[in-house]
Formats: sequence, structure tokens, C-alpha cells
Amino acid sequence: MRTVNVNLAERSYPIYVGDRLLGNKEILSRHLPQRRAAVITDSVVAPLYLDALTGILNDAGVEVIPIVISSGEQYKDWQTLGSVFDSLIAHRCERKTALVALGGGVIGDLTGFAAATYLRGVPFIQIPTTLLAQVDSSVGGKTAVNHPRGKNLIGAFYQPLAVIADTATLATLPQREIGAGLAEVIKYGLIRDPAFFSWLEANIDALTGRDADAMGYAIQRSCENKAEVVVVDEREETGVRALLNYGHTFGHAVEVGTGYGSWLHGEAVAAGMVIAARVSHYMGLISADDVARIVALLKRAHLPVAAPDLGVDRYLDLMGRDKKVEGGKIRFILLRAIGSAFLTADVPHQAISSALVDSARHG
Amino acid sequence: MRTVNVNLAERSYPIYVGDRLLGNKEILSRHLPQRRAAVITDSVVAPLYLDALTGILNDAGVEVIPIVISSGEQYKDWQTLGSVFDSLIAHRCERKTALVALGGGVIGDLTGFAAATYLRGVPFIQIPTTLLAQVDSSVGGKTAVNHPRGKNLIGAFYQPLAVIADTATLATLPQREIGAGLAEVIKYGLIRDPAFFSWLEANIDALTGRDADAMGYAIQRSCENKAEVVVVDEREETGVRALLNYGHTFGHAVEVGTGYGSWLHGEAVAAGMVIAARVSHYMGLISADDVARIVALLKRAHLPVAAPDLGVDRYLDLMGRDKKVEGGKIRFILLRAIGSAFLTADVPHQAISSALVDSARHG
Repeated sequence: MRTVNVNLAERSYPIYVGDRLLGNKEILSRHLPQRRAAVITDSVVAPLYLDALTGILNDAGVEVIPIVISSGEQYKDWQTLGSVFDSLIAHRCERKTALVALGGGVIGDLTGFAAATYLRGVPFIQIPTTLLAQVDSSVGGKTAVNHPRGKNLIGAFYQPLAVIADTATLATLPQREIGAGLAEVIKYGLIRDPAFFSWLEANIDALTGRDADAMGYAIQRSCENKAEVVVVDEREETGVRALLNYGHTFGHAVEVGTGYGSWLHGEAVAAGMVIAARVSHYMGLISADDVARIVALLKRAHLPVAAPDLGVDRYLDLMGRDKKVEGGKIRFILLRAIGSAFLTADVPHQAISSALVDSARHG
Repeated sequence: MRTVNVNLAERSYPIYVGDRLLGNKEILSRHLPQRRAAVITDSVVAPLYLDALTGILNDAGVEVIPIVISSGEQYKDWQTLGSVFDSLIAHRCERKTALVALGGGVIGDLTGFAAATYLRGVPFIQIPTTLLAQVDSSVGGKTAVNHPRGKNLIGAFYQPLAVIADTATLATLPQREIGAGLAEVIKYGLIRDPAFFSWLEANIDALTGRDADAMGYAIQRSCENKAEVVVVDEREETGVRALLNYGHTFGHAVEVGTGYGSWLHGEAVAAGMVIAARVSHYMGLISADDVARIVALLKRAHLPVAAPDLGVDRYLDLMGRDKKVEGGKIRFILLRAIGSAFLTADVPHQAISSALVDSARHG
């Protein structure tokens, strides 16, 4: 088992990464303040892991209140959140009853936001079961639901008490979900870790093949990168944390513009990272070879590198709703090299439109 | 103008109390980080103060986005909150756009929760226009909406950047609302400030008559008491802050049991404080004379001292949903003297049922 610590003073917590942690009674119950927990999961994950988790927790003397919601990004919404509160209240969950998120990013984000706001805050544990959730969304305390007009527009910064990433759960993931997770893994290399980017170029086939050792290292290194960023800018105030959103401003536009659910989040981020790389290139920051290297790695991870042709104006309109907008100006995260990202609002329109046109055209 | 500071390190903020502060351009714009603000108010307050506030803010170069919701506790709900988000998004409010709560406790609680969660947190200013909001709900960072099964079950701790209490707005308040505010004022005397309780006995007629000096002092002293409590237990973790809920466990049961909106919050708290005083008396903690002194002061403030006869079981059921419940046990705030409250889960059923029966019977 690998352990990564997120050092946030009284809000510090461990991330456990390892094989079959879902069967580890001691770790599962270590962070439960009460002998009662509400496990929130979805209709895809529940048949796979809910019974097993409930059994282990019961063994540890913990009563489980299961709450199963429909699977899919389109259910990360206001209405589903309301129904989760209804269940928590109906079962008389208290201030010390932990909420356990068992599932992917949607379950983690929605459960985290429910934990942040139910009775003004209750304990919360992340058990991510997708690669994307294990390397990104379960770490760092960003919680939210979507709004029909934009992703994650309503939420809170709220840290879990622990993240328990069982790598055995990756075995049941569709290949598309492995790719979607690898998009965020590759992102860490691109924004701040050139050595990791090179390692990924050398090991991408092992990762798409779900090699246990390679996967364990990729998850650990991703969590370390994320933790280092979160520790210096927990609430996205200084611009450092915003760098984690590399590819996301364009990616969110892809997701919203095509309707939630048709593109996986990681797929949209992959296409968005290529657009952002092309913008960086058109601004003279990185070379065409760098763009080609990025495109090649994403393709080897079976990720889309072309963006849907929504038209430049529609992209700008969708991106104008991004949380990073300030004084009406969209702020972009660009690359000055592979392994070095920065935030800027000073981007020529021409660079954006050329990158969008390119990305709509090229596979 | 009187100023009370709430000292919470980087979340510290001032409470300004004074006549005609709504006309004070400098104070109003001092805490706005952006030249844009969404003013959230209700259908009763809007005709009275929205135009004036908008005019002053425009004068100060601040663009105002007005959001007017229906007036009443029954609109402090999930659905109304959702409609506020819709408006904020439609007007492209950003992370630095402040939300301004112009109104009573419902507006302050709902706006504060919207500010805590819109884009994961935006700046927030309280302009309370009722006595209850000026002495209690606008201070301390508790924000929430109600759930059909309980009050304030969904919310966040989120501090404002400033509280601006214009005492001139009290002139337009119905007399019932003055009484409801005085219930919380009297509460501070009961739980931690015996000298203030005596001062209130001597000055209650001046307060019901809205004497400006008396009212200014009562608001200041209330805010000082609240600030002192909040500073030592911001998130209600040590039990100190829970004492501010004296009378509220019973009061919430009255509000929910009779349907939101028929009792004002302060009225329900008044009846609840009498029940809690009687429980304290039946447990041998305070004398019958103390109970009579409390009842007399509340009556002079034109507050109800009898509780609706919902039956003991129904009260217990409603109170079982209280946020203070721990391990299935309801925790009560009782008095060991006028001016000294404490939190306990160890209350004989007999004391509760006797107090409830007494309170249902006596005016």
C-alpha cells in the first residue's frame, strides 16, 4: 500500500492507494467517527461493490445506510442532491454520521457537496472506484453539482477525512474510463512534472494494459502532484491551483456544448488540452513538435484529440461562464513548455480561433 | 455609529450599527471587491429600500443586479435557492461579484448559503433590516435553507465581509417583528449576561417603543455577546456556540409542528425559552421565581409564552431531527441561573413532559 498525505493543518488527511483496500476493515473503519455511515453510490457501482463494502463495515460494527442514485454526469444536479438530503434526513443521519462516496467523480463531487452542507457539514470519506476519481477528483476538496448552464457552478471546498483508492476496482472499468483517467494523469506531467511526462511516454502501454505496478505509481505520482498544489492554494485564490484546470476551460465547453454525458470528462479534457497546447503554440510559447508529442501521447492512451466543431463564438460563449472569469475576461491556462503551465487573461483572439479551427479539423 | 468587531483571524469583519447607514455610500462600498453586486431581497423589503440602496450603490459606481424573492420563511427552501443560482448565472456573476443580503433572517440565511456555494464561494455582505436579523441571524456566519422535515438542515458556516445594520429600517417593522427580535435580545441576557438581563427588565418599554438610544445599545450588546461566542466556537464544535440555541430546540419544533410561517421565529423561540426554563426548574436548577421573571419580561415584550399543544410525543419526534442530536440523544440547553446556560443530553423525560404540559396550559 502507498500512502500520500495532504498536509492542510487541522484538515490534513491520508490518501491510501493499494490493491483490495475495499476488503481492509481496519483502514475502512479508522476514519469513521460514528458507528454509522451513509454510503452514497450509483446504479453501476452498487451491484459491483456495495454489498462487499456493507459486509466489511457491518463486520467492523458500523451500520450502513445505502443511498443509490442513477449513474451519469447528468445526475450530478440540484435535484439529485435534494433527493440525497431527503434520504439522509429520513434516516436521521446526524452531525457525526459520515458520508462515504463509493464511485467515480460524479459520486465523489456530489457526496462531498452533500457532506459540506448537510447540517452545515458532516464527516466525509472518499472511496474512488474510477481511475479519474483516484488520480484527481477525490483529492483536494473540490465538491460541486452542475447547473444546466455550466459545470460545477454550485459547490464548496470541503476536504475528506481520508481517500481510500482500491486499485482492484480498476479491473471492472470500461477501457474508455481508463483513458479518461489517464487524461488527468497526463495533465500533471504537462503542467508541472516533465520527468513524469517522460515516464508516461515510456509506460503508456503498460498503463492502458492496466499493469498493476505502473498503475500504482501513476496514481501515487498524480496524487502527490495534486496534493502539492492543493497545499499551497487550497481555495484557488493565488492562481496556483487554477493550473490544475489545464485543458478544462475548453473541455468544459465541449462537455456543456455537446450535452452532459456524451463525452466523458477526461475525454473532453484531453481534447481541451490539445486546444490549449495549440493556443500556446500559436502564441509562440511551445513548438509544433511539443504539440505533436502531446497529441501522440494522448492518442496512445486512446483519447480523442479532435474537438467537436461548435463554432468559435459558441466556444467563447460557453467559456465565458467559467469560474475563472474575472472582470468579464476569460482566463486561460497555457504551456510555456511541457511541464510548465501558467494562467493568463491576455490571449489574442486569433490564437484561440486558430486553435479551435485546427482542433475541429484534425484527428 | 457603533462598531462591533468579530475577530476570526483572516475571516474577521465589522458590524456597523447606526441610524441611516443605508444612505452611507462610503460604508456600503467599502467592502465590495468588485464594481458589481447582486442584491438579494424579498417582495416586502424591495419596495421599501431596494431603489434607495441601488441609487446609492450606482452613485458609488457599483452596478446592481437585483434579485427579488417572495417574502416568508416558507420560501427559505431548496427551490428558491435554485432560482437564485439561476439568476446569478444568467447575469454572469463572477467569483468576485458580492452578494448583498437586504432583508430579514430568511434573506440573510438564504443569501449567505448562496454566497457560500455559488462558484464554491463569493463575497457576501449582510444588510439586515429586521431587529431579529440585526441582533442575531446576520452575525456569526450560520447560513442555511430549510427542509420540509426540519429547519436549517442544509447550510454552511460562511462569514460575511461586513454587517451593516441601519436602525432606521426598524421604523417600518410591524410591532410583531420588534417582539420577535427582542426574544433573541432577551436570550443573550438569559444565557450569559445577567447584567444585560437586568438592563432589559429596566428598559423593555423603551425598546418596545423603539427608543433609538435604547435600541442602539440593545443591538450593540447583543452583537457583542454573539461575537464573543462565535469567536471561541465558530463551527459549533465545542458546545459553547450551541448555547446560542437556547429555546431553539423547542422553538423549532413549534415552527415545524405548526407549519412554517404561522409563528415568527422569534415568537417560537420565546415560547421555547419558557419551556426550557420550566425544564430547568423541574430539574431543580432554577426557582419558580426565576421562571416567573423570564415569563414576565417576555410578556412585556408582547411575546407568546404559551406553546401550542402538539402533544409530548410529537414534540419529541420533531426535536429528534435537531442538528444537536448525537448518538440518537436530543441535547438540551438549560439554565442553571438567569445569565448562565449549559448543554446536556441528560434530561429526565418527566421534566420535559411536565414543562410541555405546563407551557401548553399557561398563557
